[in-house]
Amino acid sequence: MIPTDTLAHFAALLGPKGFTDDAEAIAPWLTDWRGRYHGAAAAMLSPASTAEVAACMALAAERGIALVPQGGNTSMVGGATPPDDGSALILSLRRMNSIRSISADDNLAVCEAGVILSVLHDAAAAIGRRFPLSLGAKGSATIGGLISTNAGGTQVLRHGTMRALVEGIEAVLPDGRIYDGLAALKKDNRGYDIKQLLIGAEGTIGIVTAASLRLVPAIADRAVGWVGVETPEQALSLLRLLEARLGDIVEGFEVIADDGLGHVLSHIPGTRCPIETRTPWHVLIEVDLPDIGSPSAAERLEAALAEGLADGLALDAAIAANDAQAEAFWRIRESLSEAERAQGPALQYDISVPVARMPAFMTEAAAAAQRAFPGTTASSFGHLGDGNVHFHVRAPKGTDDGPAWIAAQGQAINAFVHDAVVASGGSISAEHGIGQMKRGELARLASPAHLMSLRAIKAAFDPKGIMNPGKLVPMAGEG
Amino acid sequence: MIPTDTLAHFAALLGPKGFTDDAEAIAPWLTDWRGRYHGAAAAMLSPASTAEVAACMALAAERGIALVPQGGNTSMVGGATPPDDGSALILSLRRMNSIRSISADDNLAVCEAGVILSVLHDAAAAIGRRFPLSLGAKGSATIGGLISTNAGGTQVLRHGTMRALVEGIEAVLPDGRIYDGLAALKKDNRGYDIKQLLIGAEGTIGIVTAASLRLVPAIADRAVGWVGVETPEQALSLLRLLEARLGDIVEGFEVIADDGLGHVLSHIPGTRCPIETRTPWHVLIEVDLPDIGSPSAAERLEAALAEGLADGLALDAAIAANDAQAEAFWRIRESLSEAERAQGPALQYDISVPVARMPAFMTEAAAAAQRAFPGTTASSFGHLGDGNVHFHVRAPKGTDDGPAWIAAQGQAINAFVHDAVVASGGSISAEHGIGQMKRGELARLASPAHLMSLRAIKAAFDPKGIMNPGKLVPMAGEG
Repeated sequence: MIPTDTLAHFAALLGPKGFTDDAEAIAPWLTDWRGRYHGAAAAMLSPASTAEVAACMALAAERGIALVPQGGNTSMVGGATPPDDGSALILSLRRMNSIRSISADDNLAVCEAGVILSVLHDAAAAIGRRFPLSLGAKGSATIGGLISTNAGGTQVLRHGTMRALVEGIEAVLPDGRIYDGLAALKKDNRGYDIKQLLIGAEGTIGIVTAASLRLVPAIADRAVGWVGVETPEQALSLLRLLEARLGDIVEGFEVIADDGLGHVLSHIPGTRCPIETRTPWHVLIEVDLPDIGSPSAAERLEAALAEGLADGLALDAAIAANDAQAEAFWRIRESLSEAERAQGPALQYDISVPVARMPAFMTEAAAAAQRAFPGTTASSFGHLGDGNVHFHVRAPKGTDDGPAWIAAQGQAINAFVHDAVVASGGSISAEHGIGQMKRGELARLASPAHLMSLRAIKAAFDPKGIMNPGKLVPMAGEG
Repeated sequence: MIPTDTLAHFAALLGPKGFTDDAEAIAPWLTDWRGRYHGAAAAMLSPASTAEVAACMALAAERGIALVPQGGNTSMVGGATPPDDGSALILSLRRMNSIRSISADDNLAVCEAGVILSVLHDAAAAIGRRFPLSLGAKGSATIGGLISTNAGGTQVLRHGTMRALVEGIEAVLPDGRIYDGLAALKKDNRGYDIKQLLIGAEGTIGIVTAASLRLVPAIADRAVGWVGVETPEQALSLLRLLEARLGDIVEGFEVIADDGLGHVLSHIPGTRCPIETRTPWHVLIEVDLPDIGSPSAAERLEAALAEGLADGLALDAAIAANDAQAEAFWRIRESLSEAERAQGPALQYDISVPVARMPAFMTEAAAAAQRAFPGTTASSFGHLGDGNVHFHVRAPKGTDDGPAWIAAQGQAINAFVHDAVVASGGSISAEHGIGQMKRGELARLASPAHLMSLRAIKAAFDPKGIMNPGKLVPMAGEG
């Protein structure tokens, strides 16, 4: 329990807008959005400035109180849920929601941690630029959380993950000191890169309070295509061809198994297959140009796909004739998770392997999982060009009690899939991070050198263990 | 002094090819290539494999012996020179010089640390690709050293520094454990990014033994232009125009003051000004395309420059008519340092500031330096688009004894220039790192949060202080 006088100190520090111990106000922030983790916290701190974050952190360090930084609370791995013993306070960055500056000339936006992703999208659009990272939770997810989880999305092929878009960072370290690395320097070799260390650190070694983010030109000309292919290998060959012919104007390259498409067509009203014949695998492609010229995006994509068809890398192809058709193609991709859920209970994995190994992984790991767990169906879809797919193992047909099936089989299937990933030189967390959910598996599978490094960094920055406890870093006993 | 039996252990471990205590053989590696730092070492270890590096490191850890990793020994800041008290051994990576694999399909080369940069250039060219990082020392500099210093060069505008080209890393940590992060994963969120931490760490927290490196398409069509402009501000506006019109096919954008050009024309035989009229500032531009198409690189550059001339962003422009002319344009840029040296003694600074602030810095900091140190001439040239210029302060005319002038004025001028850099939110080390040379200035100028972070990381990975001692991290007493 946190002493009352300590809570009073925080309350005095932050004023009524910045402090609440009202259980009802705090409740929504004690559970992750998937409802799998439930925590407790006596109060929620909502500082309005970097100085206030620093003051909270200094007080927390002095009193040995743990803080759990929180943005939009959209973690997929319980990364922003406080421990359930009430030993920590939530520190929300949501009041720090100002875009300090934004410049089309410099292609740069300086955002506070609490800026919501879609707000930044709009601000960039208003000056003829865009921030090229997007994901389903864009209406809630905040810049601070996106940085702290090194978020990905569908545009990584062209623009990289959050790491590639962060040019500078401001953070409060666990002793309350402010690290000011906001200046966007393209070359800076003053020792270990603290910015890189904070990206993806899940708030365990400091609190990101602001960042300088790279903007890119707005899209002026867009083409979206749908291609039927025989195998994931063929899809990868097609990607290589597109990269060779079109360079990095290819922004989206999503692979979908035909059974996934089938689930969408069955469960999502108003969807139809974009090509005439059903093929074993499908590819959704987006090509974007910053200005309208000749040849157009559609003409370029068409020429490259014609070559792919002639070379036998594709069975059939269609290019969206207008924006409505383009949206319809993308809607299939974006409905896949919902359709899969409608199909029955499933375990879903966010994994990556080297791109060249992904086609084999998609077919071989799926077949192996089905053999090992009879009755299950394994399939995958997603970002082939990033070596990152969403790998699903569905419960046997007729499984009514999903939670019971997961309780009985989950751990064994988790271990099976993760072992396959490690055998392919891959990562058990491509996009979502470790949080609470994957800490055990990380402990089981990481090399001793990797575990030692994670623990050493954590201990170096947060010797008192007051930064987002229980997340990311396996404990001394684990692994 | 290192005990004889410890040396015998290393000798037994590595065999005759991997161990020498012959003073003559070691001598060339005890001095940095500019001849400013001189060290001592009882032996030089030359392991031939990652396992041998790990065995050396484990033995060094057990005995408390410091190791100084060394590649091509081309550090500009004394980063690879052992301490002069003989307390450390040199560990050369030069025998680990194999390219383990290289693939055009995957655009990937897996290189050991000792591979020389120009060897990788040739290997990439042989498969129709290129490794897009180059610098003057390419015939000696090794991959391990380039990673450990996060090297830059003239292609950073388009392809980034070494950090952007490293997709995976293998390293031996100070306790002898091997960190295997070689798999090239485009998405991997398993905690703090150890790869990013090792890049630019100057061998102070581990020894990079191999890396997976990104290749890009070979250049098929190249255009090189020379533009006369009135001010650095105009040069930056021209760069913005080129980026808007040509996107990221602009690979080179180098700014040169007219007095620098004048020194080249005076001191370097066979050079001539590429444009008819002398202008206050000059810009060298290179545009590269991966295939020969229409419009060509020259046509694209010409159209963009025509717009720049029409908009008043340029006074005059010329495009090289052939390869020989292109080489002549580049020769001016590459001869600048030599010409400046012929002009008389000077202090040279490797600094960066945010791109938008660079034009003002180039004129204002130069004027301020000349006011503060009467008789001196300050000027700059280099990578405007990276916010990184080579800033020079030349001794007053008639200064015969350069070393005496540097001894008398060097420290004050260093402090003056670095203070100006910090005031502009910049970095006192853009490309070269900290090494021994800039440790004091880093201690003086870094924020407490930055210094604390550097020291915490160093202590966490290398608690015994046996990895490249005396480099990068300011000591507890400093700063």
